[in-house]
Amino acid sequence: MADFKAILAKAAQAVDTEMDRLLPHGPELEHRLFDAMRYTVLGGGKRLRPFLVIASGEIFDLELAECLRVAAAVEFVHAYSLVHDDLPCMDDDDLRRGQPTVHVKFDEATAVLTGDALLTLAFEILANRLTSPDPEVRMNLVAGLARAAGGHGMVGGQMLDLWAETNPLDEAGTARMQRLKTGEMIAFAGEAGGILARARPQQRQTLRMFAHDLGLAFQITDDLLDVEGSAEQVGKATGKDAAAGKATVVAMLGVEGARNRASLLSRQAAAHLDHFGKKANTLRDLCEFVINRTN
Amino acid sequence: MADFKAILAKAAQAVDTEMDRLLPHGPELEHRLFDAMRYTVLGGGKRLRPFLVIASGEIFDLELAECLRVAAAVEFVHAYSLVHDDLPCMDDDDLRRGQPTVHVKFDEATAVLTGDALLTLAFEILANRLTSPDPEVRMNLVAGLARAAGGHGMVGGQMLDLWAETNPLDEAGTARMQRLKTGEMIAFAGEAGGILARARPQQRQTLRMFAHDLGLAFQITDDLLDVEGSAEQVGKATGKDAAAGKATVVAMLGVEGARNRASLLSRQAAAHLDHFGKKANTLRDLCEFVINRTN
Repeated sequence: MADFKAILAKAAQAVDTEMDRLLPHGPELEHRLFDAMRYTVLGGGKRLRPFLVIASGEIFDLELAECLRVAAAVEFVHAYSLVHDDLPCMDDDDLRRGQPTVHVKFDEATAVLTGDALLTLAFEILANRLTSPDPEVRMNLVAGLARAAGGHGMVGGQMLDLWAETNPLDEAGTARMQRLKTGEMIAFAGEAGGILARARPQQRQTLRMFAHDLGLAFQITDDLLDVEGSAEQVGKATGKDAAAGKATVVAMLGVEGARNRASLLSRQAAAHLDHFGKKANTLRDLCEFVINRTN
Repeated sequence: MADFKAILAKAAQAVDTEMDRLLPHGPELEHRLFDAMRYTVLGGGKRLRPFLVIASGEIFDLELAECLRVAAAVEFVHAYSLVHDDLPCMDDDDLRRGQPTVHVKFDEATAVLTGDALLTLAFEILANRLTSPDPEVRMNLVAGLARAAGGHGMVGGQMLDLWAETNPLDEAGTARMQRLKTGEMIAFAGEAGGILARARPQQRQTLRMFAHDLGLAFQITDDLLDVEGSAEQVGKATGKDAAAGKATVVAMLGVEGARNRASLLSRQAAAHLDHFGKKANTLRDLCEFVINRTN
């Protein structure tokens, strides 16, 4: 576990360096936007999605460095979604990773624009030939990211989540909401290393299923931390889901039930990896790590 | 002029039909998002950017139907930018094209998500092979759109525009702000038909310069309508720029000076088209139209 934490930290460091490099620089008057983008992205975070890109690329012998642009693009989209989710008109969160959220640190308008610019930058990065010399590969990355992030993916899930505040979802509805809100993007992150490596469609599909199950496990442990963790430990306000009457697996199954569900999903995720043999060991360790994390 | 209005109307109708087709459908619970996307996009508008795509494609013998996906994608990005610009934390506009803005008709959270989903959808459309069988072409479209719309383009210009409310820009600063906020996207729209038709780089550059000048002329006539038009005629609240102390060409040069500037820019735009001979006649008519429009 200590070793795996070091592997995660090393990848996160490389991703942070790459993101810093890819973010806009310049003495322009609109530097406030660039400052806010940098503040948003470089303020820490688990870098789960970039790690999925890197570790799935590893299966096909891609070096970490070859995966960094895609990893950064995926994290930019995740970061944008958090900035918009935190807005007063959405979840109204003041704290994220122990720091003031972007609209608190800057202002609401800057937060809206920061999210917009990060989302756009992600597509610009993927479309650039530095990401892959093969335009079909870049195209598949752009198309996959757009599908995962859009109205039939993350944004649709966010809409459903807001709607559910006043119209409680049943278990199937909650599962669907979470699949859209976080599952599709995590599935894409898992698939992305395979896309970049021109893996066969079936291999890509296996990676998606792996990441999908892992993402659900991750979401449940997130909800558990919201219930059980302190704000200090978790780095954001806790107990908010319950206060907002949010439909979570924890609310439906209780703490023990949710913990069992996360464990089951983690094992199920790992089972998908059998197909890849030893090359998937990093992803196997990730399955273990996700259900045992404390922040 | 009457004939040209009919040409514009026919293109706008085809673009509207295509946009409706490309917008997400479905009985899903998150249909509120889909409803808001449709409300945003199909509520009218001049469709200047889609028309630029179509008319620049015409130079290279592309049929209207072949340009519609790109035209729709460009308009989706324009529409998203308006929805976010209208938010209370940005320009705080209640009226757009004579109708309640999205956050008034729905709510603020839905407006944020609607913009996010439209932006994402634009990239999804461009990346799809139905847009062009050539992945290099699709890639150039995605990259070009992202550059025009991002932090070094439209979003950067919006940031600068907000900043200018409290830190007035000089004439050069205002020109730069407008180039970023609207000019880059209009230049891309002009270039896009050329990208789609695999025009030579120099031809693409000529189209960009044409569209850039035309866009400036369009912006000035927009500002003139804000000063001179009635809300009923223009379809949105007028006099807002002056009230907000916004830096516009009209504020700097006066009404007559601005009108002369628009006329000069329109002629300058038309001069770029010499290169293309008769095939650019539609774009020439557009230059005339832009400076004589009354809404």
